[in-house]
Amino acid sequence: MTGTTIDIISSEVLKDLKVDFPRKSETESRNGDQTEFDSSSDQKTKGLDHPQIPGWFAEHCPIWPGQAHFLEVEKIIFQGKSEYQNMMVFQSSSYGKVFVLDGALQLTEKDECAYQEMITHLPLCSIPNPKKVLLIGGGDGGILREISRHASVEQIHICEIDTMLINVYKEYFPEIAIGYEDSRVILHVCDGSEYLKTVQSGTFDAIIIDAFDPIRPGHDLFEGPFFELVAKALRPGGAMCIQAESLWFQQFSVQHLVDDCHRIFKGSASYAWTTVPTYPRRASGVIGFMLCSTESEGPSVDFIHPINPIDPDQIFGVAKGPLKFYNSAEVHAAAFCLPTFAKKPAHSHIPSTRSQVDDNTDNEVLVLRRFGFCMQIHTAALSPSAMPSCVVDVIGSQNLDSSM
Amino acid sequence: MTGTTIDIISSEVLKDLKVDFPRKSETESRNGDQTEFDSSSDQKTKGLDHPQIPGWFAEHCPIWPGQAHFLEVEKIIFQGKSEYQNMMVFQSSSYGKVFVLDGALQLTEKDECAYQEMITHLPLCSIPNPKKVLLIGGGDGGILREISRHASVEQIHICEIDTMLINVYKEYFPEIAIGYEDSRVILHVCDGSEYLKTVQSGTFDAIIIDAFDPIRPGHDLFEGPFFELVAKALRPGGAMCIQAESLWFQQFSVQHLVDDCHRIFKGSASYAWTTVPTYPRRASGVIGFMLCSTESEGPSVDFIHPINPIDPDQIFGVAKGPLKFYNSAEVHAAAFCLPTFAKKPAHSHIPSTRSQVDDNTDNEVLVLRRFGFCMQIHTAALSPSAMPSCVVDVIGSQNLDSSM
Repeated sequence: MTGTTIDIISSEVLKDLKVDFPRKSETESRNGDQTEFDSSSDQKTKGLDHPQIPGWFAEHCPIWPGQAHFLEVEKIIFQGKSEYQNMMVFQSSSYGKVFVLDGALQLTEKDECAYQEMITHLPLCSIPNPKKVLLIGGGDGGILREISRHASVEQIHICEIDTMLINVYKEYFPEIAIGYEDSRVILHVCDGSEYLKTVQSGTFDAIIIDAFDPIRPGHDLFEGPFFELVAKALRPGGAMCIQAESLWFQQFSVQHLVDDCHRIFKGSASYAWTTVPTYPRRASGVIGFMLCSTESEGPSVDFIHPINPIDPDQIFGVAKGPLKFYNSAEVHAAAFCLPTFAKKPAHSHIPSTRSQVDDNTDNEVLVLRRFGFCMQIHTAALSPSAMPSCVVDVIGSQNLDSSM
Repeated sequence: MTGTTIDIISSEVLKDLKVDFPRKSETESRNGDQTEFDSSSDQKTKGLDHPQIPGWFAEHCPIWPGQAHFLEVEKIIFQGKSEYQNMMVFQSSSYGKVFVLDGALQLTEKDECAYQEMITHLPLCSIPNPKKVLLIGGGDGGILREISRHASVEQIHICEIDTMLINVYKEYFPEIAIGYEDSRVILHVCDGSEYLKTVQSGTFDAIIIDAFDPIRPGHDLFEGPFFELVAKALRPGGAMCIQAESLWFQQFSVQHLVDDCHRIFKGSASYAWTTVPTYPRRASGVIGFMLCSTESEGPSVDFIHPINPIDPDQIFGVAKGPLKFYNSAEVHAAAFCLPTFAKKPAHSHIPSTRSQVDDNTDNEVLVLRRFGFCMQIHTAALSPSAMPSCVVDVIGSQNLDSSM
């Protein structure tokens, strides 16, 4: 990584960084009782048309209207606000600990294995002998943990802009953040787009993008230079993998996405999916992955048939145990098998209902994050009297008031 | 079907049966406004610990505590009570029309294709030349619609005990109930278990069981003679398919289920799964299928590789259009590929949380249905003031009061 102007900080350094625990005493004083909303909270949420349940958490997204998935909160463990975003960790009664970022569910202990393993091993098992891997986002460390299983890898670069997020994961999700303990990890505390501008062409064998916003055709990432930079940073025949929409999203077309990606990456482009019951922005229990390769003199990368399989009985790297979800023998190829409706340019299997995106956006509170994702914040999903008041302060008023 | 004492009624007869529309005027008078709970409703739900949202529907099941999936209700279209169960049809804002049976979501227009197509074509495409097929349950007609696509089939027998259910589907879900229009359909209005006692050995090439309760090891169906009767009714090398739990259910073991089935059916036993975002008793967005075959002199049925594939461009039978979800080329085999954790006898990938089944059953309202499934009814998921009062009467007081 010579020639970059980006600070490179080894993961060791971060152990000394301060983790902010705002209003810790209020968090600890929660008694767990569920009571009714007070009027001040009700006022704050006026105009939001999504459901709210005291003592339960839900995220709500304008592109999936008319449904909501709730998790019961046993205890709020941490909340805080970094320079970039609000964070909350809570103990759920059904999915272990849950991490919430700007009101959006990021992961749960129960099902994080599916997403982390699939987004990592689908690309890395598809190319021979990956040595230099870049992860953009993924500050929780789970994808690092998975990359760490590959013995051929010599350098694992990660761009994560928010050091507080890293430290919160290290504190509360040690089995996920354990990825940082791999000595091959090189942390770049910066925006991934900026970092890519500094990278020499053909540097990486694989780039994994753990984006906040699932891509689809017409996504911001196709408008700007981001994917061009990713393609340039890959060696010929290198592989990229990014989270990509749900098959069940009505306006989503796999074929259009594949076409968009093929135009930029020039090599192969394949769509895969898996089951993740609670995954962020989920409303269907599945999440897709877009895999692309750059052109090379040899044959295009065949993402469907892994040429670099992981031995399920071999444990390498920092993970404490074997793979839980992914296996090269079955799950890998099966992930690329699509339902019939998803093979059509625009699938119209769904009876007409109201528009998938509410027109009445004046009444919605949108939070724009660095990948341009729009998220309606549900201040009142947690009752201010059942939860500490700072939950509403942090997730509620900070975002709501500044956006209104 | 000689030698039976069961009434056989052709599907034509049912057109004359009366459909009960209780309190139709109240249903039509609903103005759609959402208002607060009234105290009487609150009283009725005292002791239920699951969340409730006025104007939204959710089912809640004791085996999936701490989470709930809600659908916004645009309009209640029908509600009624047959000799056996309560029914409701509502227009959702996100999944088209929804059918609810005794408080449990049965299907939605948006995603019924996944379940109906998979439970039908996984078995029927795995055996050569199926001629006589039996469906137990499945009164909505969707599986009949799918069986109808198979040109080799000469008789489609269905056991459905509730004629009112059939008629409600015919009235409000014509694209699903269209299965009854196939002239090969022979309707037996009776309990499936009783019907099986009257069937000669080796009668059917395939039996599909659309059970209310997903099976798992130790399920009631393994205790009684039901599966023995199913196995006896199948010809040697015949196939059975039944809904079977979610991979994500913590206590579920695929291997134990396969062992249980193999013990009874003697031939092959394979587990498959698919994505169904809203499927009944779902809390993970996936549903499994157990496929078994009986012994034969030839090789065991290989469920994973379909020997009787459906041509996607060929349209046969009563369905108005081609397959939406299933395809023999990819989806069939992929459905049998299991995540690593599901291959273990008892998967323990989930951090310990509270018991999956609440001990506090004294406070829960259980409805026992004919397959022995326990469902906690959520009277208050719909506000009595937002919905017509008879919703609470039918879904609430009828079940709640009689069960308490």
